[in-house]
Amino acid sequence: MPIPQIDSTHDAALSVALDAAINNKTKPLGSLGMLEPLAKQIGLIQQTLAPQLLAPAILVCAGDHGIVAENISAYPQSVTWQMVENFLRQGAAINVFARQNGCALHIVDAGVNHDFGPREGLIDLKVAHGTRNFAWEPAMTMEQCLGAMQHGMALAGSLEGNVLGFGEMGIGNTTAAAAIMHKLTGIAVGDCVGAGTGLAADGIRHKQQVIEAAVARHTAANTALEVLSTFGGFEIAMLVGAMLGAAQRRMVLLIDGFIVSSALLVAARLQPAILDYCVFSHCSDEHGHRRMLQHLAVRPLLQLDLRLGEGTGCALALPLLQAAVNFLCEMATFASAQVSGKIA
Amino acid sequence: MPIPQIDSTHDAALSVALDAAINNKTKPLGSLGMLEPLAKQIGLIQQTLAPQLLAPAILVCAGDHGIVAENISAYPQSVTWQMVENFLRQGAAINVFARQNGCALHIVDAGVNHDFGPREGLIDLKVAHGTRNFAWEPAMTMEQCLGAMQHGMALAGSLEGNVLGFGEMGIGNTTAAAAIMHKLTGIAVGDCVGAGTGLAADGIRHKQQVIEAAVARHTAANTALEVLSTFGGFEIAMLVGAMLGAAQRRMVLLIDGFIVSSALLVAARLQPAILDYCVFSHCSDEHGHRRMLQHLAVRPLLQLDLRLGEGTGCALALPLLQAAVNFLCEMATFASAQVSGKIA
Repeated sequence: MPIPQIDSTHDAALSVALDAAINNKTKPLGSLGMLEPLAKQIGLIQQTLAPQLLAPAILVCAGDHGIVAENISAYPQSVTWQMVENFLRQGAAINVFARQNGCALHIVDAGVNHDFGPREGLIDLKVAHGTRNFAWEPAMTMEQCLGAMQHGMALAGSLEGNVLGFGEMGIGNTTAAAAIMHKLTGIAVGDCVGAGTGLAADGIRHKQQVIEAAVARHTAANTALEVLSTFGGFEIAMLVGAMLGAAQRRMVLLIDGFIVSSALLVAARLQPAILDYCVFSHCSDEHGHRRMLQHLAVRPLLQLDLRLGEGTGCALALPLLQAAVNFLCEMATFASAQVSGKIA
Repeated sequence: MPIPQIDSTHDAALSVALDAAINNKTKPLGSLGMLEPLAKQIGLIQQTLAPQLLAPAILVCAGDHGIVAENISAYPQSVTWQMVENFLRQGAAINVFARQNGCALHIVDAGVNHDFGPREGLIDLKVAHGTRNFAWEPAMTMEQCLGAMQHGMALAGSLEGNVLGFGEMGIGNTTAAAAIMHKLTGIAVGDCVGAGTGLAADGIRHKQQVIEAAVARHTAANTALEVLSTFGGFEIAMLVGAMLGAAQRRMVLLIDGFIVSSALLVAARLQPAILDYCVFSHCSDEHGHRRMLQHLAVRPLLQLDLRLGEGTGCALALPLLQAAVNFLCEMATFASAQVSGKIA
């Protein structure tokens, strides 16, 4: 499978023109804070002085993890498929927030350990009934990993719209994400591991030991794809592919929390310019996320102590993206509104 | 003028019921972060397990300040009325964000130094053509101050809806707000003063000296109302009254940045329970705002480095209030969705 080439959005002339457009709006210089570089970023992605958000959507990929056999989660594995059913019946937080903010939702079975049968609204791209237990063997084969990525890429290629958020569901996937984070950043496992859905301190210590033992076992896994296939989940691999596919189409990529950011670590190792397309919706309360964002040298829009996943941070941040685009397209300029400028 | 009595929203039984409703939703305990106490707060304000946001509005009060004669602003005084015209023509940032988020906008002339004549969409409650220069004399008489507050109270009483945001426009009003902050919190003037619309370091030093000299002159101003009338602006006094009136009607009060928060300092000194009704939309990049929020022991929803005023932070935070209300009213429970609970 060829990894698509992602081009940087850098454009010196457009950059100068966007700065001028932003600075001529009727407001003190820089006074819209983070919305100003956000508007500029979206303008550069869309290669225009008048960006628009069209048909925003969130892709929620679900998968199960063999590592749950090591008792690393506060919830049983069955919650993965039960929450997928909840998504399909519009009962989860992501349904509420996506509906509120006019965002389409695509629910994908990337590898849940459950037979849903044909279910309206569920995109069936199941690779297998959950990954294998990476405490003992690689979570997936390289073929499965590339297959999941390929599915994600094709999915991103099939969507209308120019903004794509990424969400996930999978009991055990903060364990997978923490292992990926450790391997790709070199940050100590203890700084990558957190409470997930709600482990107490002894549970977190156990989870850390499980990851450390697995990392010691799989010393041969070192490239981004090896790390992904050894420790990842099918939903994480599918998100990696979807991110690459979306960036190739010059969509705005809305990054959610800890697990989605771990997928981005993989994608950015493969194609560093993908970061030009990413908006970081929030800093999760999951322990490792702040360090992961620091590693990427990015600043998230929201800091609400969310730790729910599902793409909820993306849905909640979407109005801020809309605000960035709207001020750039709709505000008057000092000249058009005949407002006096700064005292010389 | 009688100051209305504001009752605390405290209700032990409803508080327990709201906690239970929030904790039974299909999500890990506490995983919606700040949205959870926000949903609870709005439930307590509205005295219901199923709160609703009805006809949200933002009140933008504009006023001029005699203190501009001391060269404490980067922009000329004429920008106040020019920006009011910009509001009326829908060209300002607050117009864009309020429109985007379905929020009504009420523009009030509280005391601009300009004759607008009858202007559609402008609420004329002008107390005078700007305050006097508090470097030399009190900014307003106590009668003017109470009159502005009374206007604000009546205005809040006349609005439909149950969410009211507060915004302002007034060249020079960060100087007034910094003086109020210093007097009511005891925090050193240097920690209350910032760049406003964009002063350089020497301009900030001069602004600080102007405030320090004025504070040394007006030693008799010590009660909340004396501080407000001596250093405040008509728009700030009107906001104080509007806040008191809105809280008395059990509306949700959406607090914007530095200047609006200085009005709240006054209102909270008069009626401390008003804080139960306040949602802090953002932490401004204006230097003193973080300290002011710390003094109030509150945490804002957004931290976007905004420093524009106009109520822009309120308009941008509104979707988060809507999300809080929506998850409480619309999400499935573990029981209704048949999702397994935590492993014992």
